[in-house]
Amino acid sequence: MTTAAERPAVGAPLVERVLAHYRERTLAELLRHIPEQSPPYLYDLAADYPTRPCKGLRAALCLVTCAAFGGAPDRALNPAVTVELFHNAFLVHDDIQDGSELRRGTPTLPARYGVEVALNVGNAINLLGLRRVMANRRALGGELAWRLFEETELMCRQSLEGQAMEIAWIRDNVCDLTSADYYRMCLKKTSWYTFLYPCRSGLLVAEGAGTDATRLDRFGWYLGAAFQIQDDVLNLVGAAEEYGKEIAGDLWEGKRTLMLIQLLERATPAERARVVRHLSLTRAQRGPGAAEDVAWLLDRMTAYDCVAHAQEAAAGLVAAAEREIEGVLAGVPEPAADGDGDGDGAEAEQARAFLRALPDFVVARGR
Amino acid sequence: MTTAAERPAVGAPLVERVLAHYRERTLAELLRHIPEQSPPYLYDLAADYPTRPCKGLRAALCLVTCAAFGGAPDRALNPAVTVELFHNAFLVHDDIQDGSELRRGTPTLPARYGVEVALNVGNAINLLGLRRVMANRRALGGELAWRLFEETELMCRQSLEGQAMEIAWIRDNVCDLTSADYYRMCLKKTSWYTFLYPCRSGLLVAEGAGTDATRLDRFGWYLGAAFQIQDDVLNLVGAAEEYGKEIAGDLWEGKRTLMLIQLLERATPAERARVVRHLSLTRAQRGPGAAEDVAWLLDRMTAYDCVAHAQEAAAGLVAAAEREIEGVLAGVPEPAADGDGDGDGAEAEQARAFLRALPDFVVARGR
Repeated sequence: MTTAAERPAVGAPLVERVLAHYRERTLAELLRHIPEQSPPYLYDLAADYPTRPCKGLRAALCLVTCAAFGGAPDRALNPAVTVELFHNAFLVHDDIQDGSELRRGTPTLPARYGVEVALNVGNAINLLGLRRVMANRRALGGELAWRLFEETELMCRQSLEGQAMEIAWIRDNVCDLTSADYYRMCLKKTSWYTFLYPCRSGLLVAEGAGTDATRLDRFGWYLGAAFQIQDDVLNLVGAAEEYGKEIAGDLWEGKRTLMLIQLLERATPAERARVVRHLSLTRAQRGPGAAEDVAWLLDRMTAYDCVAHAQEAAAGLVAAAEREIEGVLAGVPEPAADGDGDGDGAEAEQARAFLRALPDFVVARGR
Repeated sequence: MTTAAERPAVGAPLVERVLAHYRERTLAELLRHIPEQSPPYLYDLAADYPTRPCKGLRAALCLVTCAAFGGAPDRALNPAVTVELFHNAFLVHDDIQDGSELRRGTPTLPARYGVEVALNVGNAINLLGLRRVMANRRALGGELAWRLFEETELMCRQSLEGQAMEIAWIRDNVCDLTSADYYRMCLKKTSWYTFLYPCRSGLLVAEGAGTDATRLDRFGWYLGAAFQIQDDVLNLVGAAEEYGKEIAGDLWEGKRTLMLIQLLERATPAERARVVRHLSLTRAQRGPGAAEDVAWLLDRMTAYDCVAHAQEAAAGLVAAAEREIEGVLAGVPEPAADGDGDGDGAEAEQARAFLRALPDFVVARGR
């Protein structure tokens, strides 16, 4: 699935090398569990998003966490595939909800096949994720399987609630949000399934159902917030080809980013009124003056240093995540040498290096 | 939730009386598990469809089956609520996919709140259903809970695949279907979650994880096919107020019903060509002549006795279902008298009478 051109060179930074390695393992396992027999436009399309170019961050983080805490990463393949599947189902449904045209550089499933098919495919991917949760019972035993089931349900719930918060803010044109509101939404919508769930499930597989799986929650929360801020920043300033989405699409959609919240706080009353008016209209209602409005929003965000402020916030979160991971890893015994029948010493060491390097990577990434 | 006007009178037939009784128990339990804390437009809307007037057939069948086979129906409340929730999530997503305006006589969720909110609400209802599956562990023990989890996943899969088959037929304008294709689709799309799952889960709760839960499969399969045929017939000939959906909507959508398959088989080559041409166009493409086309289709279906033929097929399925349930119940010991600490003798007897009367009810119902 990964072409030579996409695979990072030997000298590429550690994080990208490890991501590519685990992505290959996860994708092979994911594809192995997509049914070959399918009514048209169902499972045959379930592999579409997962095989498009992407980092595979969530699955890799699950496997890496398992390795870093002394487990054999292969035992965590089911939860890794689970989170990758739920993530992709979420993307398919999200593309329906946003009416998006592009995903990872090519047309979205709803753009290509319509809402009717895309909604089914999203549901099919969710169901394949649920099957991996069931598969844990045989692979890991009933006790651990139930814990992972609970964690999976919680992750889905948090993501759904976070997304609902964001949708309601836009729908009801909520304009008095604080950064605390934004961070709460991030924790639910982004951090949970991108960082908390992979870390928790990796810890559970490495250490068993009785472990304290919440030890990396703060690490994940900081990272998730930094990740989302960086995503929002890239949407504003990233180059179209590199990012693969419509530039400043968030300003068209009225998405409540940290930058927008900052702008609403810092703008003059007249400017604020113009922002609120812009936000109160749907894309269709805005008419021909819309592009000008969006350009003006971008200009005001620059004038009030909103992007720089958001980047500073992200940098603070990265520093906090780095302190967190140091603290947690300090409490873990050094990995045993090879041949103890469980985790692999060299792999564990590399996994810890990955976790230490991840915070910086999250804000340095181009997409 | 049920108003006095909706509640059947004391003299109403057994099936309606039992349905109303169990619907009340299921709905109370269902509503008890909808979170009170909710972001706007999420759990607050999850109760919308379930509280609209409906029969509650699936949940009742689960509880009735449990009672008929000697179990205490209250122990089956979780699976009953599960199937009711998945059913309603399915309806919400279905209304998005079909662009439907009305559901049970009032505007659909997507018509009222848009696709963005409705898609989330459907996902939230699914997730609440999954939580009931998790709750089985505490209520029924790990072994039975896993079996019910497997049955739930299988039910979701069958429904999704059945719906995908139907969507693909319309999308690819498949016009060479046989009644066998239709029945296969019905088994997956309708029978499984309306009859097979409720019967299987009721049997499992009554008799334990080790039982043969497939004993009522044929009963459920016959009933599901009769149910779907009757649904399609009502769509063609039912009165708008009573049925609550657009009349002949299936002909507008190009839905592959037994009647349409019959018409394609019986029509002259010229008529067949006109049917195929009509089916090849989307609603938007059909233009002003569409209503005339639909009226002509209806007329041809009458001329070729397609509705009468479908009703005969349904009657045959009802007779087969009646033979099936007699056979299965004959092998069950008569219920013990009250006070054995498990099932209730009178309730069990009533449950068996319900199962015997259900086939006839399925085709006699007005909606």
